[in-house]
Amino acid sequence: MPQGQPQSVPADGLTTRQRRNRPITAVHTGPGKGKSTAAFGMALRGWNQGFDIGVFQFVKSAKWKVGEEEVFRRLGELHEQTGEGGAVEWHKMGSGWSWTRSSTGENTQEQHAADALEGWREIQRRIADERHDLYVLDEFTYPMKWGWVDVDEVVATLADRPGKQHVVITGRDAHPRLIEAATLVTEMTKIRHPMDDGQKGQRGIEW
Amino acid sequence: MPQGQPQSVPADGLTTRQRRNRPITAVHTGPGKGKSTAAFGMALRGWNQGFDIGVFQFVKSAKWKVGEEEVFRRLGELHEQTGEGGAVEWHKMGSGWSWTRSSTGENTQEQHAADALEGWREIQRRIADERHDLYVLDEFTYPMKWGWVDVDEVVATLADRPGKQHVVITGRDAHPRLIEAATLVTEMTKIRHPMDDGQKGQRGIEW
Repeated sequence: MPQGQPQSVPADGLTTRQRRNRPITAVHTGPGKGKSTAAFGMALRGWNQGFDIGVFQFVKSAKWKVGEEEVFRRLGELHEQTGEGGAVEWHKMGSGWSWTRSSTGENTQEQHAADALEGWREIQRRIADERHDLYVLDEFTYPMKWGWVDVDEVVATLADRPGKQHVVITGRDAHPRLIEAATLVTEMTKIRHPMDDGQKGQRGIEW
Repeated sequence: MPQGQPQSVPADGLTTRQRRNRPITAVHTGPGKGKSTAAFGMALRGWNQGFDIGVFQFVKSAKWKVGEEEVFRRLGELHEQTGEGGAVEWHKMGSGWSWTRSSTGENTQEQHAADALEGWREIQRRIADERHDLYVLDEFTYPMKWGWVDVDEVVATLADRPGKQHVVITGRDAHPRLIEAATLVTEMTKIRHPMDDGQKGQRGIEW
């Protein structure tokens, strides 16, 4: 039950308003469930406040999140039709990205790495242009872990980003330097999961 | 990146279909962020599959979740207007509950306890009637922790519930017997939070 009151106020020379208005860099990591789900929940809250939402899924097969994608596309349509909430863009790495067909469609590790880097380059361009209010970089820890995207470059881009752009990054094994650079880090730990008992994923719960 | 394949199959006499179709009892606990947010994310996914969603907030002041409430009420309207997704009911303890005005509106601990128990009794009735497909019992760990609602009664009601009703319970300090009874337990651990640095909550992120 958050109370909204900081426990202490640092001597950083910022006013409460300045401090309040720093953009959020959130990281949801750890082996448990809920990392992406909580990020999409944040996006839902932001949408309701009129935030322009950009989702970028750094996975080759995103079949587990089609439910969220359908609802957010619907919310984006609602915004276009009625002006409610904010705009929504939802991009998946898939075979390349929706804004480009530069990917060869090859299913090699080299191509995955190239596609991931292309996604990050586009995000850098959008951050420079202040294109979105909230970026969800889903499963983005993996391209950093695997060396496809340079973690120090990500940290520098986030540190220097203009305006008020919030960023949420999800995935296991977040790099320590990314965690250090974030303002809000939550680790999701699995205590018990139905797959431990031989239960497969099911409609409406897992996707 | 969930793969959808259990690591082992237990000798419990159930077919894969039977095991797959067991309803979920999820608990999101721990001191970190994202417990409720991930629960609402699950509700979003369920809504998209046509689930009838019932949200019950066991807090006296739910000002931090008005964003989620507004979006889910809107999704419930969409369902009524177009048939998309599922129905949505959103109830807050507030001063009593929306289905009853039996609360005296007093702000005493005794009244809070009585209101919480009244909420749980209504949920028991709805579970017996198979009223919803997915129940979000937000911050419901606290009434159990404080002895206002008997944890063994909750566990028994969940164990005996008819049909295919999913339940998600959020809040810190989930009781060990509740955790034991759940099929999916995630602990959210705070690694870093902006309030540690004197940053207050902000619009679109915290509410």
